[in-house]
Amino acid sequence: MKVGVIGLGTMGMGAAVNLVKKGHRVTGCDLRPAVREALAAAGGAAVERPDALPADLDALLVLVVNAAQEQEVLFGAEGCVPRLPQGAVVICSTTVAPEAARGLERQLTAAGLLMLDAPVSGGRAGADAGTMTVMGSGAPAAFDRAAPVLEAIAAKVWRLGDAAGIGSTVKMVNQLLAGVHIAVAAEALALGIRAGADPQTLYDVICTSAGSSWMWQNRVPHILAGDDTPLSAVNIFVKDLGIVLDQARALAFPAPIAATAHQLFLGAAALGNGAKDDAFVIRVWEALTGIALPGQT
Amino acid sequence: MKVGVIGLGTMGMGAAVNLVKKGHRVTGCDLRPAVREALAAAGGAAVERPDALPADLDALLVLVVNAAQEQEVLFGAEGCVPRLPQGAVVICSTTVAPEAARGLERQLTAAGLLMLDAPVSGGRAGADAGTMTVMGSGAPAAFDRAAPVLEAIAAKVWRLGDAAGIGSTVKMVNQLLAGVHIAVAAEALALGIRAGADPQTLYDVICTSAGSSWMWQNRVPHILAGDDTPLSAVNIFVKDLGIVLDQARALAFPAPIAATAHQLFLGAAALGNGAKDDAFVIRVWEALTGIALPGQT
Repeated sequence: MKVGVIGLGTMGMGAAVNLVKKGHRVTGCDLRPAVREALAAAGGAAVERPDALPADLDALLVLVVNAAQEQEVLFGAEGCVPRLPQGAVVICSTTVAPEAARGLERQLTAAGLLMLDAPVSGGRAGADAGTMTVMGSGAPAAFDRAAPVLEAIAAKVWRLGDAAGIGSTVKMVNQLLAGVHIAVAAEALALGIRAGADPQTLYDVICTSAGSSWMWQNRVPHILAGDDTPLSAVNIFVKDLGIVLDQARALAFPAPIAATAHQLFLGAAALGNGAKDDAFVIRVWEALTGIALPGQT
Repeated sequence: MKVGVIGLGTMGMGAAVNLVKKGHRVTGCDLRPAVREALAAAGGAAVERPDALPADLDALLVLVVNAAQEQEVLFGAEGCVPRLPQGAVVICSTTVAPEAARGLERQLTAAGLLMLDAPVSGGRAGADAGTMTVMGSGAPAAFDRAAPVLEAIAAKVWRLGDAAGIGSTVKMVNQLLAGVHIAVAAEALALGIRAGADPQTLYDVICTSAGSSWMWQNRVPHILAGDDTPLSAVNIFVKDLGIVLDQARALAFPAPIAATAHQLFLGAAALGNGAKDDAFVIRVWEALTGIALPGQT
């Protein structure tokens, strides 16, 4: 298939390279020359502007930062929708509010295109390995058209409903849990350090106890290594918990734990850690209590 | 060995029965006739008062509700410490504040006894199967003397230090994570329900995604089944997060996520769910937002 990929960040680049490996003709789109060159080196083509994408794409995968960017690359002044052939499928994998996904489905349907609400989970490791989880919803025809693309990038594709919205709802719930689990991992590890526990031992014990989580096992090692290189950044959870709280507010739904965790990610960003690895939300407690984090000289 | 077990609740009964199975001579102690009879039927002996325990015990396992009960059964008017032989080991597996564990070690050492700070994790399933995790600290002589008992009740014994306190510190951190993970599982599931997701599908998707936790996988099925029979009760986390917050306050350590989760367990207790299964902290959102919980008629 001829596939376009807009947004060659961590997730988009992993998806694009796996699509190349599976034999698809891939054209990436990103403002940054370095990532365009990286995709070209991996066997794909790459363009700077969405309106420079090929005019004969079968599928377009969109993995940008937020709903505003989605609107821009699809319907903006340089947007690619006017170039897409009728019946092509637009796979929207950006994390957005369910209402934004429903609105996009209306717009794309009106333009004669298929739309899949298809947020993904799995992080850099899942993207690189082509083993992401897709939380998908949309018309059966959209799933059918998108199938070869999803097969190349995901180990598991959930079909959660016949219209956009429910895929993004499930992703939102996942991000609520993921964000809170990272923030509470930091709170708990920081308290343990303050109370005199050895961080590595504490990590090992909790990994085999009822207090464990996917995020505890995945993120605490970043803190133990003192490595704040962003695999996923603090600012991603400033954004994603923001989406959760906006959506909860729209539903008049109180989410006090998510709201507290959001404040802590905002605190970490305020301390200058917005672009650092999300586990370094623990710097809030470092700043407040003076604890010594592991791996710091 | 001759082993006493004070407190034949969920965890204590499981431990006592496993000690019987491994060939130890076990005497349980509990105020409730029904659990005394259950232990007798399983091959143990049982007494009502701590000062009626045999005078020749090698080891005493204490699994009561809190530090005050620990003091009462050991040093109160009917306490058993005066009857224990010099050099016997007291295995304190109640969840208590680290400072309480350190104080108990001083008292028991002064009485010529060995003390192990040995809180446990694993729930009813682990207690019944003899596969609990012990987060232990204490003198090497206490570990040596307690070894046959720990072997009978636990799959994993952590040796976290040579004095009481660090075992309870690690347990406290585990309870912080466990309590928050239950409360946020409820918050996230409730939001998903409010936003239109199918609860069972949401559970299945999150189980294989980055938002998963040990507690999500273990507790959400109780909510899906509509079964509020307490495996572990709301009031346990009212107590245990209370210990976490008391200890954090004593250290001048802010723990905003734990504090928020504690308020939610208090809310569930205020609604009359204190003795119900801890997953039914979700009734706070049921009461606030009117969502329909699964399995309710």
